[in-house]
Amino acid sequence: MASKEPLSFIGLGAMGFGMATNLIKEGYAVTGFDVWAPTLERFTKEGGSTASTPAEAASGKNVCICMVATAQQAQEVLLDGEKPAVPALPKGAVVLLCSTVPCSYVQELEKAIHAAGRPDVHLIDCPVSGGAIRAGNGTLSIMAGASDAAIARGQELLQVMSDPAKLYIVAGGIGAGSNMKMCHQVLAANQIASASEAMGLAHQLDLDLSKTAEALIKSDGWSWMLENRMPRILDADHGPLASAVNIIIKDTSIITVEARRAEFPTPMTSTAEQMYFLGLGKGYGTDDDASLIRLYTEGKGKLGPVKAASTTDDEKLALVTSLLKGIHLCAAAETLSFAHHVGLDLEQVFELCINAAGGSAMLSKVGPNIMKALRGEARGGDALQLADFARDLGAAVDEAQRLKVPVFLGNSALNLIRVALRKAGADAAADSVVSVWSS
Amino acid sequence: MASKEPLSFIGLGAMGFGMATNLIKEGYAVTGFDVWAPTLERFTKEGGSTASTPAEAASGKNVCICMVATAQQAQEVLLDGEKPAVPALPKGAVVLLCSTVPCSYVQELEKAIHAAGRPDVHLIDCPVSGGAIRAGNGTLSIMAGASDAAIARGQELLQVMSDPAKLYIVAGGIGAGSNMKMCHQVLAANQIASASEAMGLAHQLDLDLSKTAEALIKSDGWSWMLENRMPRILDADHGPLASAVNIIIKDTSIITVEARRAEFPTPMTSTAEQMYFLGLGKGYGTDDDASLIRLYTEGKGKLGPVKAASTTDDEKLALVTSLLKGIHLCAAAETLSFAHHVGLDLEQVFELCINAAGGSAMLSKVGPNIMKALRGEARGGDALQLADFARDLGAAVDEAQRLKVPVFLGNSALNLIRVALRKAGADAAADSVVSVWSS
Repeated sequence: MASKEPLSFIGLGAMGFGMATNLIKEGYAVTGFDVWAPTLERFTKEGGSTASTPAEAASGKNVCICMVATAQQAQEVLLDGEKPAVPALPKGAVVLLCSTVPCSYVQELEKAIHAAGRPDVHLIDCPVSGGAIRAGNGTLSIMAGASDAAIARGQELLQVMSDPAKLYIVAGGIGAGSNMKMCHQVLAANQIASASEAMGLAHQLDLDLSKTAEALIKSDGWSWMLENRMPRILDADHGPLASAVNIIIKDTSIITVEARRAEFPTPMTSTAEQMYFLGLGKGYGTDDDASLIRLYTEGKGKLGPVKAASTTDDEKLALVTSLLKGIHLCAAAETLSFAHHVGLDLEQVFELCINAAGGSAMLSKVGPNIMKALRGEARGGDALQLADFARDLGAAVDEAQRLKVPVFLGNSALNLIRVALRKAGADAAADSVVSVWSS
Repeated sequence: MASKEPLSFIGLGAMGFGMATNLIKEGYAVTGFDVWAPTLERFTKEGGSTASTPAEAASGKNVCICMVATAQQAQEVLLDGEKPAVPALPKGAVVLLCSTVPCSYVQELEKAIHAAGRPDVHLIDCPVSGGAIRAGNGTLSIMAGASDAAIARGQELLQVMSDPAKLYIVAGGIGAGSNMKMCHQVLAANQIASASEAMGLAHQLDLDLSKTAEALIKSDGWSWMLENRMPRILDADHGPLASAVNIIIKDTSIITVEARRAEFPTPMTSTAEQMYFLGLGKGYGTDDDASLIRLYTEGKGKLGPVKAASTTDDEKLALVTSLLKGIHLCAAAETLSFAHHVGLDLEQVFELCINAAGGSAMLSKVGPNIMKALRGEARGGDALQLADFARDLGAAVDEAQRLKVPVFLGNSALNLIRVALRKAGADAAADSVVSVWSS
């Protein structure tokens, strides 16, 4: 039974459907719109109203939440398409754009809304993270940037959709939320890829994959993505579909396009992106991203005589763990450096990432010192040594080379660590890897 | 009709067969050995004698030339296998090891020959470059390192096998020849891969490949490998087989293993190596390396809606040229930095490479300033700008991203250039990219 203000919700995909039905449960009268008719039917069964155009959904509602897949779709449904939402909104309404889009896009969108004669409409740049289950439970991580007035207007809804501890009001206004999400996705993009790379190497080493998974999840090679993707990596069909390769490609594109725009290097994410494009070329675009382990396993048995140096399962597991640690160290450095470059508050980025899908043991352990290094502050004396990472990751890369199998991210990470060690000296702390990205 | 000293030749593969038959033509009595019987039969028809073991070939000959494929094979035929050559050699004989092997291996081999009770045997570390045709014509590039006494002993034969302008006596003794070859192969490995990457992008851009090839060969994107591989890239079957993927993988392994041993970063070569491993996983190991264009073309038509920004053939060709220029700039910097790190004479490396299979327009244009940068010398004021490379290569990478196709080397190069620009400043010269590899 709806008792709170009526609102419109555009984009009822896996995430949007969960978010919108959660709002119904919380007592809101939600009018949904989606281009895919069967979704609207399901939405009606959950107690929602439906509309046949964005304008019809938005008409008379003081709130419009938009959770479409891309910036292009947002532009269509809000302003440029057939019967768009914004012109139909009442005076002083608020638009919450929850889609993951480039910072530059959402800044342009605000200008376009004003230029379309609606300077009265409040826009909130509030991408989300956490997956469909947390969307349905109202416990998402949300990164919201906007004017104070807009935030005040949307605060209640942001709270309903998020875990109270995971609602981040990001300083910097429109675009800052998207920048925060983008930096989080640097970790996501690398750690989705590293999960497949590590388990692919484990397969090439003839390790038992279930036991390896269990051990890695408890190790310093842990990442949220590794643990989250593992059941689908281990599943013979890499199902059930939870997040498609096409989705993470959309996010890596935002990162690398924005990085080029900012003239900032993202060697780790670029490497992950090339690996995603490989998957796309094989027709894996609509498969779950956990299926990318196939990129690392397909050659097995075709490679002629190869001979691994490691013999025991413990030795092999140590190599796979080192591979993950080295990659995650560099992913953490790339993320925090990029966040620093775009002017985000590092502590807030860190807190968001360790509590969301970007978390990793390396980020938790080395992240605080990386932040100090970026701010030019002194670090403590008991830090992890960068040379140890180079040695251990080097052993994993050596072994992959003996097996003649690619470890794209592992090689990128090792070379970046070597570049940093050349500059910072052999006794440098692990956080010194950040010097690669520094000016 | 043999009129010069009898010699033994071990390893009659594509290169060895040409070298050995050239020596016959030059008047030497050559006794050949190879594990593959049909080759011996062919060799007899060319006027050679044959032996059934390395020892039989070497027995009584003051010279033993070894042109097997790997260090492991060299160790077998010279010392450790069934009836090896070295113990059978007369006192004071000379062994010319022409195989491409790690510096560390040939240094160990010399010690092992001495330890086996044959300190009287002269060893020359003399890898070659130039392909089977030049092997047969006696116009190879040869990089020879050894003691003065050994070089004096082998000089005549080295001259017979090489183009007089392309025989390099490398200072530093045993291992220096292999280090020189290794640095040359950094260029080879990157430029074999970039030829496929560039032509793959041209295919994705719907360019006419024959016309593109013609234009690229005349452009600043030129490399010796691009021109040499082009007929086989354009051939529908990528034939006839001239140099297999397995061969360049052997060389990249030497580079990256030695680099890790030297704690030196080789981000470009490591990227190329991963791409070669991908080819291996697909079963392309015994195919010509020109066939690796398949790694860049396989996804075409499977990628869903993609939209290129470039429209005219001129625009598209400029993107492909920029891709090659950016990659070759970074390959030149990686090569010369690594050569500097292992203590080679940079002028000699440069001269060798521009006259052999490592040549590229970028090496010729920027190499001299890179060498000055490595030696800390002042450079002239009319240098190419690094920011121009970043802009042009960035446009190519942007376009590949729109098409959702991988450009592995292009992305590596762009990120390295961005790393260098962050440190060297926006008005840095192109040679400043070398700062990535510097300590």
